[in-house]
Amino acid sequence: MTEIDHLRLERLQRMMAEQDLAALICRLPENVVYLTGYWPHHGFSVAVMPREGMPLAFVPEVEEVYARTGWAQITTFGQGLLKDGDLYANYRALLSAARDRLSLGGKKVGVEKSFEVVAPTYRSAEPVVPAAPWNDLMAELFSGSTLLDVFGLIQSARAIKTDFELGKLRIANEISEMGINYALSKLVPGLTEAQVGAAVEYKIRADGPGHKGAQLVRAMAEVAAGPVGSTKATLFIPSTGYKIREGDFVMIELATVVDGYWSDLTYMAVAGEPNKRQREVYNVLLQAQQAAAGQMRDGAAFDDPDKAARLVLDKAGLGEYFVHITGHGVGYRYHEFVPFLMPGAEGTLVKGMVSSIEPGVYIPDFGGLRIEDNVAVGETGPIFLSTPRKPW
Amino acid sequence: MTEIDHLRLERLQRMMAEQDLAALICRLPENVVYLTGYWPHHGFSVAVMPREGMPLAFVPEVEEVYARTGWAQITTFGQGLLKDGDLYANYRALLSAARDRLSLGGKKVGVEKSFEVVAPTYRSAEPVVPAAPWNDLMAELFSGSTLLDVFGLIQSARAIKTDFELGKLRIANEISEMGINYALSKLVPGLTEAQVGAAVEYKIRADGPGHKGAQLVRAMAEVAAGPVGSTKATLFIPSTGYKIREGDFVMIELATVVDGYWSDLTYMAVAGEPNKRQREVYNVLLQAQQAAAGQMRDGAAFDDPDKAARLVLDKAGLGEYFVHITGHGVGYRYHEFVPFLMPGAEGTLVKGMVSSIEPGVYIPDFGGLRIEDNVAVGETGPIFLSTPRKPW
Repeated sequence: MTEIDHLRLERLQRMMAEQDLAALICRLPENVVYLTGYWPHHGFSVAVMPREGMPLAFVPEVEEVYARTGWAQITTFGQGLLKDGDLYANYRALLSAARDRLSLGGKKVGVEKSFEVVAPTYRSAEPVVPAAPWNDLMAELFSGSTLLDVFGLIQSARAIKTDFELGKLRIANEISEMGINYALSKLVPGLTEAQVGAAVEYKIRADGPGHKGAQLVRAMAEVAAGPVGSTKATLFIPSTGYKIREGDFVMIELATVVDGYWSDLTYMAVAGEPNKRQREVYNVLLQAQQAAAGQMRDGAAFDDPDKAARLVLDKAGLGEYFVHITGHGVGYRYHEFVPFLMPGAEGTLVKGMVSSIEPGVYIPDFGGLRIEDNVAVGETGPIFLSTPRKPW
Repeated sequence: MTEIDHLRLERLQRMMAEQDLAALICRLPENVVYLTGYWPHHGFSVAVMPREGMPLAFVPEVEEVYARTGWAQITTFGQGLLKDGDLYANYRALLSAARDRLSLGGKKVGVEKSFEVVAPTYRSAEPVVPAAPWNDLMAELFSGSTLLDVFGLIQSARAIKTDFELGKLRIANEISEMGINYALSKLVPGLTEAQVGAAVEYKIRADGPGHKGAQLVRAMAEVAAGPVGSTKATLFIPSTGYKIREGDFVMIELATVVDGYWSDLTYMAVAGEPNKRQREVYNVLLQAQQAAAGQMRDGAAFDDPDKAARLVLDKAGLGEYFVHITGHGVGYRYHEFVPFLMPGAEGTLVKGMVSSIEPGVYIPDFGGLRIEDNVAVGETGPIFLSTPRKPW
């Protein structure tokens, strides 16, 4: 029996009613899984969400068995074999039938116009995104309707998670930690950054599927080590062939996706035993991270977690080295834009929002450190979706 | 010293001149690497290719050292830290300066409108693609110019490879084979499909960087095993937790990208010793694959390789099980659309084109087999970019 996330759909449909939207038509995999509970493999699937009732999904035949793990009403089409017709002919037929069946003519229909940062499908080597051919087809099929960009609506809707979604995000974080713990257990001087990152990904890809029902699992780990490499890692940088030395900081930045739900973690380690100064800086950063997480309560401001982290780091004389934001939403993408925890951010944290909490300091001639967990906003305080760290 | 692929640029600029295009402005990573030799990490980089002279590239600061491995004239911009301004403000300033400097006002400018199937950046967990915000900015900045969709032009241009590009594709194939050979050396009954796939990816991610100058390497392997799983694998299907049994067919489908250049291979194995029928079918399929590859010569028709493969399989009574195309272009994407080797395909193979050659048969109650190599069109015959297989 498929478990249906009714709360998610009801809240979304209320938001659609407020904007007088008769339907949403989505092709981006992050929105297909949001609307239907099924994460596409290829990116050819389409979800149609009416203002009332359950969504429809048009799905390549080869993915049908996976699509049925979600809750949409499925129609399949052939895609990719010699027997199969033209993709756009299939889209045209399926969408015009849906338009007529749902009486969308003359009404407001929501489409994805402004998504530039997107999540891949499971088939991450080849994303499929809507561009001119899709936009032209939609304009033609819905020439009597008004096509509205639902970028803002969908981002806001996705920002607040139900218990169903929190459960999925917990599983993604558990599988992430399997990879981190595996690689850390094998960490010795002499390995390259690339080898450590590959070990993280190996464990997740090998043993993630099957963990608490997980099916489709993918991971991307980047490792930055040593006083130079880790200091540069204020942002995403690729793993290199640098050989890790005794006493080096090792930073593991990890994106994991499980059936369309994402985890974004950063772990720190030292190859060998951390020295006194390494412990001190790590422990101050951990205090800053925990102070920020402590602000993840219903009604707090978007910039409260950021302020809390900076206060701790300023007191320790490390504030100048914290050059990036404190956190960003996580859920249907590695980076969601709601909430966005940075100085001056305007907005109010609402129960069920999920954010990374990831202060970092990058100290010249010493090294870079970041500690990142995924934390939900609770009634009165944080709900960790990943395992809180312990001091060194 | 950066090696510059002058032949690539000269041919492209001739094609631009034929269509009276004053410049191309590209953001998709597959086109940025094509124009500049540098494969973006994030997808925020922009390449501007004038009709004469060398390309410009606008690149996030954090990627500058990688961008300088290519041949574009680099301008950096801050992106992602608190100090950095708005991305679109940066784009606006950089692009309007380029427009004025190159005198593009009133002229024809090529843009990416119809790319729906795209390659990821190195940061495959989060593709970045042009959508409404980018299209609106371009329309505004080039309101006096004509913006033309260069989907067709770029696909045609990319289809014919220079020796520089063939060298890059060879490296990608060598790294792919490192992963395949590693996993096959460890293949024993009892492993799951997911574990075998993870081993392929592990080796490529761990030891690919550094091989003949390779920097940015990513891989996606899917394994289908057993009489049921492999038979379903007519198309991409995900690895599962199925435990491989003695005597099972094991199919490894692998996409590898090295600094923006792709390899697409499929390998077959049997867990343990293949039986007589398995050997027979494999060897017939290999004959079909080699017959198809034999047609990869300048002047042959797009459907000649396909006909050659089908002839062999028809003679062996296996033709009905070959339900997909014989091959597709490979280069700046896992799947390019030029050439496309299928029954009735119209077009002529030109020296330097590269295609997968991948006949397959999927036989109920027996298993599915596909053998896929990457092969360039030579003057009088095939140039294998991957290692030709031997009979079992």
